[in-house]
Amino acid sequence: MNVLLTSVGRRCYLVEYFKQELAGKGHVIGVNSDPLTSGMAAVDRRYTVPPIDDDAYIPRLLEICQEESIGLMLSLFDIDLPILARHRDQFEAMGISVVVSDPWVVEAANDKWLTYGLLLEHGLGTPLTFLGLESARSALKRGELDFPVIVKPRWGMGSISIYTAEDMEELEFFYRYALKNIAASYLNILARSDMDHAVIVQEKVQGQEYGVDVLNDLDGNFLTSVVKKKIAMRSGETDIAVTEDNELVRHITESLGVLLKHRGSLDVDIIFDESTGDSKVIEFNARFGGGYPFSHLAGANFVSALLSLAQGQLVDIKCFSYIRGVQGVKAIVPTTLTDY
Amino acid sequence: MNVLLTSVGRRCYLVEYFKQELAGKGHVIGVNSDPLTSGMAAVDRRYTVPPIDDDAYIPRLLEICQEESIGLMLSLFDIDLPILARHRDQFEAMGISVVVSDPWVVEAANDKWLTYGLLLEHGLGTPLTFLGLESARSALKRGELDFPVIVKPRWGMGSISIYTAEDMEELEFFYRYALKNIAASYLNILARSDMDHAVIVQEKVQGQEYGVDVLNDLDGNFLTSVVKKKIAMRSGETDIAVTEDNELVRHITESLGVLLKHRGSLDVDIIFDESTGDSKVIEFNARFGGGYPFSHLAGANFVSALLSLAQGQLVDIKCFSYIRGVQGVKAIVPTTLTDY
Repeated sequence: MNVLLTSVGRRCYLVEYFKQELAGKGHVIGVNSDPLTSGMAAVDRRYTVPPIDDDAYIPRLLEICQEESIGLMLSLFDIDLPILARHRDQFEAMGISVVVSDPWVVEAANDKWLTYGLLLEHGLGTPLTFLGLESARSALKRGELDFPVIVKPRWGMGSISIYTAEDMEELEFFYRYALKNIAASYLNILARSDMDHAVIVQEKVQGQEYGVDVLNDLDGNFLTSVVKKKIAMRSGETDIAVTEDNELVRHITESLGVLLKHRGSLDVDIIFDESTGDSKVIEFNARFGGGYPFSHLAGANFVSALLSLAQGQLVDIKCFSYIRGVQGVKAIVPTTLTDY
Repeated sequence: MNVLLTSVGRRCYLVEYFKQELAGKGHVIGVNSDPLTSGMAAVDRRYTVPPIDDDAYIPRLLEICQEESIGLMLSLFDIDLPILARHRDQFEAMGISVVVSDPWVVEAANDKWLTYGLLLEHGLGTPLTFLGLESARSALKRGELDFPVIVKPRWGMGSISIYTAEDMEELEFFYRYALKNIAASYLNILARSDMDHAVIVQEKVQGQEYGVDVLNDLDGNFLTSVVKKKIAMRSGETDIAVTEDNELVRHITESLGVLLKHRGSLDVDIIFDESTGDSKVIEFNARFGGGYPFSHLAGANFVSALLSLAQGQLVDIKCFSYIRGVQGVKAIVPTTLTDY
């Protein structure tokens, strides 16, 4: 079976995991609008495709799926997910297992204001969040919100345009600045629908940040999760982490997976405050996250599980077991880009 | 011969290059104040050492050099260089080849205001630079400087606290904001001497950015250089680059190496504007830069050259030759941190 990874970007390690599991019994095909990335360098075959918001994008993907006899398809990029979710049936009609969640799940993950509403509604802890400068300002005046606060894109990714404001002047400046930057960046693909409300202001939560990978099957049924304590970040991605048991963190994030009925891996960021025992979900992404390798290093194997599910096979129970206390780091390995 | 890499940080690829060249005939020893880094994970033996600005730092390094029979020593971190430059004779007295430049060279590289003065004095192209908000503001009023401008730490590193200001409000805000952030970050180790003048404002230069590695021998005599066109950046480091001949860029950066008489590798950032034929040096660092792997991938081998020099051997001429047009990318390879 061949696997298609869309928006493969820098996720060369996921490409390698799929290659290892396929062990020659299938190829990993990668597509990206920019061919010069480490993910595109690692795949068995690569296609440079039109930008996600181009009308030719979906037709081109359908063509590639046909030509390459794709059996399993995943996306690794938030901006890619909404359009794939809307066109999922076209790929499924070709017999492809599409690891993309329902449109409402993708939207609840991508739109941090919807995320907030969903978490509140279901009683899962989340930081106080405000849409618009005025509502944040009046919450500050009423004493409901205190500095420092986080200013960030409502439809955001990684560390792009995220600022910490320590006083009113910084809040007002960064609010306008974030709006300007969103309009000028590719984030505007998602923010287009409501550019006037494209920035949120959030309470800065104290505590230890965890990353959790929650795996559901292709019908959205919960399978397993891996909890990791984040030790260091780089460019908004986890750079060093260690697998660790934290029952509250596990319970909240697994509840989220049951609730969302997402497909495949859900990447959840959550902060645990030891002094209060509280956990607050910061955000979640309906795709493999940058922290997944730390679960894989510890023995979990969501890649193998997805391949089994796509082939209608039983998932080996070993895919779900992992060792606590495994510390991992993302090493940098310079590699020549050949055959371009 | 054993090699000591101080402030080894995330430079796991340099550790691997040294291990390859030593081929078992010596060990790579790494020291860092934080043991949890990919560089520390890659070395043959690691030591967690006191912070650079701690009185115990140099005595501890001297001890480690003694215990490990170090023959060659390099630092990979700008903040580390001034103190090593001042204490170089103590290490040399132990028979160690220290690839650290004279204090004035390190200072001219670390202090971007000195960098500007040096480049101006020697007629090497460089962006218009202003120390202090007032001088930038009056240059803007006189029409000598135009928006956008770059606001950055006078003693800076990577992309930390670098902002583009598109108007006066952004300039004034980011100037104050950068000052505040420098005071709160480890950059204050270098900025301590003149915190009131710790931010510079620089013309934003148009054109293609190049990175050049200029190699001098251990007495500061020029040996060779490798010119690379930068294709993509991440966290202020070159992420994708291609070796390319650009005679003007080569000429200017080699002149700089002859002038500075630095030791080992000098990392130069320079922007070439095809429309005017002008080149402007943005900054240089008196150590291996994050772009060195792209020179190494193309066949140059400064690591082997330094090992030969430290052992009083002739440098193999092959270390200087490289193939033009070699494109490289930094792949991310998740790795378990074991034996910690």
